[in-house]
Amino acid sequence: MYQVPRGTRDFTPDEMQKRRYVEECMRNTFQKFGYKEIQTPTFETLELFTAKSGEAIVNELYSFTDKSGRELALRPELTAPVMRFYVDKLQMEPKPLKLFYFGNCFRYDRPQKGRYREFWQMGCELIGISNPEAIAELIALAYYALKETGLKGIILRIGNLDYLDQQMEKILQTDTDISKYHPGGAAEWKSDMSRFIDKEDYEGIQNQLRKIDANPKDVKEFNEFLKSGSVSDLKTFIETSKLEIYEKVIRHLKEFGIDQIKIEMKIARGLDYYKGLVFEIDAPVLGAEKQICGGGVYDLVKSFGGKDVPTAGFAIGFDRTILALDAEQFSFPLPKTDVYIIPVNSEMIEKSIEIAQQLRKEGVITEFDLLRRGVGKSLKYANSKNSEKAIIIGPQELEKDSVTLRDMKTGDQQLIKIAEILSKIKNH
Amino acid sequence: MYQVPRGTRDFTPDEMQKRRYVEECMRNTFQKFGYKEIQTPTFETLELFTAKSGEAIVNELYSFTDKSGRELALRPELTAPVMRFYVDKLQMEPKPLKLFYFGNCFRYDRPQKGRYREFWQMGCELIGISNPEAIAELIALAYYALKETGLKGIILRIGNLDYLDQQMEKILQTDTDISKYHPGGAAEWKSDMSRFIDKEDYEGIQNQLRKIDANPKDVKEFNEFLKSGSVSDLKTFIETSKLEIYEKVIRHLKEFGIDQIKIEMKIARGLDYYKGLVFEIDAPVLGAEKQICGGGVYDLVKSFGGKDVPTAGFAIGFDRTILALDAEQFSFPLPKTDVYIIPVNSEMIEKSIEIAQQLRKEGVITEFDLLRRGVGKSLKYANSKNSEKAIIIGPQELEKDSVTLRDMKTGDQQLIKIAEILSKIKNH
Repeated sequence: MYQVPRGTRDFTPDEMQKRRYVEECMRNTFQKFGYKEIQTPTFETLELFTAKSGEAIVNELYSFTDKSGRELALRPELTAPVMRFYVDKLQMEPKPLKLFYFGNCFRYDRPQKGRYREFWQMGCELIGISNPEAIAELIALAYYALKETGLKGIILRIGNLDYLDQQMEKILQTDTDISKYHPGGAAEWKSDMSRFIDKEDYEGIQNQLRKIDANPKDVKEFNEFLKSGSVSDLKTFIETSKLEIYEKVIRHLKEFGIDQIKIEMKIARGLDYYKGLVFEIDAPVLGAEKQICGGGVYDLVKSFGGKDVPTAGFAIGFDRTILALDAEQFSFPLPKTDVYIIPVNSEMIEKSIEIAQQLRKEGVITEFDLLRRGVGKSLKYANSKNSEKAIIIGPQELEKDSVTLRDMKTGDQQLIKIAEILSKIKNH
Repeated sequence: MYQVPRGTRDFTPDEMQKRRYVEECMRNTFQKFGYKEIQTPTFETLELFTAKSGEAIVNELYSFTDKSGRELALRPELTAPVMRFYVDKLQMEPKPLKLFYFGNCFRYDRPQKGRYREFWQMGCELIGISNPEAIAELIALAYYALKETGLKGIILRIGNLDYLDQQMEKILQTDTDISKYHPGGAAEWKSDMSRFIDKEDYEGIQNQLRKIDANPKDVKEFNEFLKSGSVSDLKTFIETSKLEIYEKVIRHLKEFGIDQIKIEMKIARGLDYYKGLVFEIDAPVLGAEKQICGGGVYDLVKSFGGKDVPTAGFAIGFDRTILALDAEQFSFPLPKTDVYIIPVNSEMIEKSIEIAQQLRKEGVITEFDLLRRGVGKSLKYANSKNSEKAIIIGPQELEKDSVTLRDMKTGDQQLIKIAEILSKIKNH
């Protein structure tokens, strides 16, 4: 009769078990790196997102007006809210500030595989520091947060928007009047170019170059720059002094234990507030929608009215991480019941409650049969709940202070004293 | 510059630490009772909530229209979404179904102490069973979920809407034409009456009685019924056969270890879909806004298009639970850092990273100084982060494969071998 709104999902107990498991793995990793969790509201003033991403984002948002006429929007991402929080309330905190979040975001997208209208992001923001070891630690954290979930095949790619910008500027030193092709001038040309690069749309890239009559030598050089796969490749294009920080970050990443690092100048991230180093992590098992993490050094605090401060961060696509684990056939821990208690008749309920409460006090996941449907049916239900043991409580056994303990896997049953239950269950 | 929308909140790391602690306590308790977690979308179709609570609820909702013209609303509570989920996808699951949720809800209220526009609820729904031990277990779960957080002073109150309805019906057997006073007739009169009772508005109650010219004997009896404080008090008003289930629930609650139970006929819950037994839990430390949990037996599945099935559930006000713990001056665990690593110069960074990664692998919450600000300032920062230990890495010590370990509480320092670090830290 009623259904879930388009593009959103219900999660069953099995799915929630997976999700909480992955959430816990990531949260533990963030905490081990000294990051502390924060939380912001599910909706914000609409302006916050247009200030960050431009007016065009309104079409991709769920927005609504509140009773006093304020325009609000469900958050499409969490970096802007976290920076708003920082500027509003955390500027005086000792630096560096190492913050993480886990929250749902909303995008008015056409729903498709791996893209939902309500989706979850887990991410970090590092505020007040920009030296190479700090950036390397941030990237290592993203990498290990994913690794610790059990994900095997992930690829870290590192780019640099400053280098890319420098190469684009070089091409733009032509005689052509850009505004003939792009009313927005050089900025718009670069922004369009970034989008083509980010999408790896080579035809688009070559078209952009033709439009401004770029000279063949520059075109060749630019195409080669985009293919750079190592720091030594980059040395042809970028001055040594500018490469130093980038080299150090990569060296530190190796010290953090990450060996497989792909240098890639094609990361454009298409977002105006990123500057300098950017990175992405892919799970190739996912095919076309393989990117599961993106981040880098960015600049938002000043435009939000705060005092200038270095900032960097990343966001992990939580839903895609789970899809990737599924695709790798990771065996998630299953929901289970430790003990299922079956009173054979209603006189046994009191004792059943008593035993259940004692076990629960010791942390044992305990259910007791509430439907009074007979031992056979109850055992079948216990099985469906993945129960490890069953305890059958009957009048004759109870007279001897005993109950029947059944191993649900083997079907073995034994008569045990009530006082022994806990030790028998903990020693399975 | 940008601020949090009115009635919503940002949560700092200290606050999140509290919130995650309480969430974990409650989740563990739900799981120990065999309840499994589910999750539903943050917004639903508007009709879902009007079907449950009537058109008037629209004024208390954040609603918006999607691109295809569908009316959606941020969820004001979670019972309707969970029932929608059940009817849509879980009807075939083995019964009983024991489900729990933790989620944010939204209400377009005037913000005031303990009432926010975005707030969190944790709750359970029990589907497919209605016998006394099952209902008792559900109530016991609500009670222990709160107790396990560390909350001391809570009071469980149990009412019964069938009994209340029966007494109201009795009064309505007058000659008066109710529609003279209430165009909605008896149903509206009872609904208004319930509201006065729920608010403990005695003047309102007496006015309602006067309006229909209730005879003095009935008025006296009704007022006495409302004062009932025990099952034996109720025997004057309710037939024994109807009292039996209620008595059994209360007896089982005692078997579940709950001694302090208040029988209270004034619980009306003001919600049309509750039937029979209802209960509330208060934290009197909160004063006027003391109710932190409410629930009971209800009936929603059929009106959502599902096959009739017994249902009961409760919701705990998560934010109020935290306010109550604060008011009781509960000592929440604080965010902390186990080890803070300080490289005395930039040549020590590589070793620092290596040691940090080894500790993190063992689950130690480890930070290393990223700002290169000298040992004194770094120790001060380590202190502000609640660090237990600091490790100072200098060139002379490193030559001897050693580092300086500092106890941040006592200030004691000792030279230890790098290979000993883990054992020294774990034995604090």
